[in-house]
Amino acid sequence: MKTRIRVGLIGYGRAGKAVARVLAKSDDIDLRWIAKQKPAEEIEQAGAPAPILSAALLPTGELFEREPVDAVVDFSTAAAVRKYGKQAAARHVAIISAVSKYPPTTKALLERLAKETVVMSSPNITLGINYLLVAAELLQFIAPFTDIEIIEEHFRDKPERSGTALRIAQTLGLDESKVNSIRVGGIVGRHEVVFGFPFQTVRLCHDSISREAFGTGALFALRKLHGRAPGFYAYENILRDAMIESLLGKGAQTQ
Amino acid sequence: MKTRIRVGLIGYGRAGKAVARVLAKSDDIDLRWIAKQKPAEEIEQAGAPAPILSAALLPTGELFEREPVDAVVDFSTAAAVRKYGKQAAARHVAIISAVSKYPPTTKALLERLAKETVVMSSPNITLGINYLLVAAELLQFIAPFTDIEIIEEHFRDKPERSGTALRIAQTLGLDESKVNSIRVGGIVGRHEVVFGFPFQTVRLCHDSISREAFGTGALFALRKLHGRAPGFYAYENILRDAMIESLLGKGAQTQ
Amino acid sequence: MKTRIRVGLIGYGRAGKAVARVLAKSDDIDLRWIAKQKPAEEIEQAGAPAPILSAALLPTGELFEREPVDAVVDFSTAAAVRKYGKQAAARHVAIISAVSKYPPTTKALLERLAKETVVMSSPNITLGINYLLVAAELLQFIAPFTDIEIIEEHFRDKPERSGTALRIAQTLGLDESKVNSIRVGGIVGRHEVVFGFPFQTVRLCHDSISREAFGTGALFALRKLHGRAPGFYAYENILRDAMIESLLGKGAQTQ
Amino acid sequence: MKTRIRVGLIGYGRAGKAVARVLAKSDDIDLRWIAKQKPAEEIEQAGAPAPILSAALLPTGELFEREPVDAVVDFSTAAAVRKYGKQAAARHVAIISAVSKYPPTTKALLERLAKETVVMSSPNITLGINYLLVAAELLQFIAPFTDIEIIEEHFRDKPERSGTALRIAQTLGLDESKVNSIRVGGIVGRHEVVFGFPFQTVRLCHDSISREAFGTGALFALRKLHGRAPGFYAYENILRDAMIESLLGKGAQTQ
Repeated sequence: MKTRIRVGLIGYGRAGKAVARVLAKSDDIDLRWIAKQKPAEEIEQAGAPAPILSAALLPTGELFEREPVDAVVDFSTAAAVRKYGKQAAARHVAIISAVSKYPPTTKALLERLAKETVVMSSPNITLGINYLLVAAELLQFIAPFTDIEIIEEHFRDKPERSGTALRIAQTLGLDESKVNSIRVGGIVGRHEVVFGFPFQTVRLCHDSISREAFGTGALFALRKLHGRAPGFYAYENILRDAMIESLLGKGAQTQ
Repeated sequence: MKTRIRVGLIGYGRAGKAVARVLAKSDDIDLRWIAKQKPAEEIEQAGAPAPILSAALLPTGELFEREPVDAVVDFSTAAAVRKYGKQAAARHVAIISAVSKYPPTTKALLERLAKETVVMSSPNITLGINYLLVAAELLQFIAPFTDIEIIEEHFRDKPERSGTALRIAQTLGLDESKVNSIRVGGIVGRHEVVFGFPFQTVRLCHDSISREAFGTGALFALRKLHGRAPGFYAYENILRDAMIESLLGKGAQTQ
Repeated sequence: MKTRIRVGLIGYGRAGKAVARVLAKSDDIDLRWIAKQKPAEEIEQAGAPAPILSAALLPTGELFEREPVDAVVDFSTAAAVRKYGKQAAARHVAIISAVSKYPPTTKALLERLAKETVVMSSPNITLGINYLLVAAELLQFIAPFTDIEIIEEHFRDKPERSGTALRIAQTLGLDESKVNSIRVGGIVGRHEVVFGFPFQTVRLCHDSISREAFGTGALFALRKLHGRAPGFYAYENILRDAMIESLLGKGAQTQ
Repeated sequence: MKTRIRVGLIGYGRAGKAVARVLAKSDDIDLRWIAKQKPAEEIEQAGAPAPILSAALLPTGELFEREPVDAVVDFSTAAAVRKYGKQAAARHVAIISAVSKYPPTTKALLERLAKETVVMSSPNITLGINYLLVAAELLQFIAPFTDIEIIEEHFRDKPERSGTALRIAQTLGLDESKVNSIRVGGIVGRHEVVFGFPFQTVRLCHDSISREAFGTGALFALRKLHGRAPGFYAYENILRDAMIESLLGKGAQTQ
């Protein structure tokens, strides 16, 4: 029988809850615990798919000793990894972080930890968005003469440009002015990359209806990074690897 | 200075004309001649981007001798390759055919010719559609749990299902019932592959507004197959190769 | 000061809750009570935007006497109106029902009630979908020569064709085969009507991301039906009236 | 038997030719002549669906005398109406102009002519775009709380914002910043109006693949304006009238 990947989830807000639900349903994942920033006595266990423990057990390493895991998935705040990072790395526990923004010193910490264990950090860990990014890169490589524009649509009150759209623009070497932002009610999140060829267009679109999408993305990272050598991994690189695997399997004629 | 690829175009109907225009504008292509199924004296040269010669010169090999080329691009009929194929292969002239359907015996001939020269045959040689096919395959490999449906939209009078849509369905292992056909006026050709994840969707769309799109596709094949070893190449394999090249360049971490 | 419309909400399931939230936020609506199918002592009031009372008070008319309202909005089950209908009609309380399906005898009851009070019943009371229906009808009238197809996309497990799509098809006189159903994960509900003209297309699309959309639709009906004469109103007719009002205001040159 | 509307076409460039083809195919239209800005002896008749006559015959009224028509459709230049306008108006010949821009003095002329005959002038006379404009106006009237944005997509080399998109924005009272312009190859022309409701969106899209779309639009105007009283008509007003006709026929309950 295949060994299940033992996972600890750090952070149990809206996104964390969604991710917990997805992980708990996966046969090859063993969600051992959820760590929450609260004293043990104030934590409500009702409805949780795994025991919720206090994040106070993380800095001493006690939690990792009591309930060993192969990986942690971090949906909490930028401060958290400063508390648990060394304890995790020392035990070769993979760190998969979906925290949107880290200050430079924490980024530096993540890179140091990557010498001892697998570290992945990405502000958007949905499979769909990362696929969009790499698929767009591939098409640009194949057809460098195409015109490219990006349309991102979000709920009215999102004030700034979509960070994901800007990241796609940067990856494709596009000026920020090629990112068109639509803000109206009734949309959770939509990204579209339009490629204009002579006489044809290709559009790559991603629509998101809920944060639960993060769960599928975390699951993919857990599976693909399990057993890898220590190092810092970008989400899109896991995807690129999977694509090469697919392309070689499909008989591409390179050798 | 880079040597230009010398090309002969066989077939000068609506699609052939569009392709000729695109090839004639490309710096690295030298469009040497266009062969047309007419006696020499009836051919009108006006407006053509290269001399139009009679296809009657093909079976004897006279055309290949008088005006040597590195490759022929065939936008004519299924019968043509029976006339020029051996003459081309004997001179290691690459054969790039966009003829939509070949009878079995002609397919067998193409495979025999592929032992001596580069042969590529594909019913749809637009870059966009072939990219869609391979990009869909990649996403299915990465996310095998997604639901997939195909929507193809064409002008009202196209009676049958889109061959391209059926080919995408077949490649993805989908039942034909997953191909939804829309037939209304005002559309040239549109293909969309919808991937349903939990809580997110990815859509890959291709819109075509004119046959001229074939020109860009022929150009890509000419460039990518130039200098290759004899063999039978599928259009999507040239794309897969280019994708691997891109992915390896972008630092995929495989091996 | 404008008088607020006093409303009672019947049914407090997922859709009912969403509707309550929207009504409670509207300045011109006074949500007086919510009736729930439970004994009074078992009802939890926490978080509700209005007092929740037992539906047991409806059949005797006691609820209407204690807390008079101008209209009830019914998001409960087909059985409910048999209990409260006569009591409501006798007091000229408008009945706005979003129950999806009524058996024939209940339909007959609604028609009888419509002799005494305003009755509106529609399986889909979102503004967007009803607008789509009427806007499609208008375009078909203007351009009867167009080809029309419908695409409806829903979550994977919706087994049957979308009732809304079938209703649009019926209204436009289209064969059921013109309704194309896509079933994939990650979609709540999407309807698209494609009009093919010679050399152009018009697409009318509606995307729904949550049941809360029903709230806006109920609100519109409440406002438009307030003060109307007794009668049976279809949702699309309220929209048609509003459109005529708009068109006449915009200087259409009729008469 | 229904009398056919006798039409003269002024202007025979790319758009004019497309329009001539559509008019010539319509049973209720009698395309009597096409006027072209050339001396009679230089005009080639080949392929034209009606006799091509010299525009030199217009200013004297000779053409209107020799070949009386009920309406002229003008796809030529801003200068033309100064030559034929008075002759047409004096004979109550309707003037339907698709010229994109008139200088103020010519606009004033058109208004004077409108006292004697039917005059319609619109920079975009496609049915689809004008429907989009009025349909958007209707939805805004019904749901004034929606957020609205416009996306317009055109071929790469179109330098300025789409005049049609700006007109839609102006009609809806939107700031110009709500118009998002996409410029890539492979697109003829696309306009999309996005309405964001709470929890739902409605999109109205128009795609154009060729100028031939103008033909259907001219035809609609000819039919709707035939027999009308003299006056200045906007294209969208003809559409509004048709919509009221449709809505009243469908049993809207107004009055």
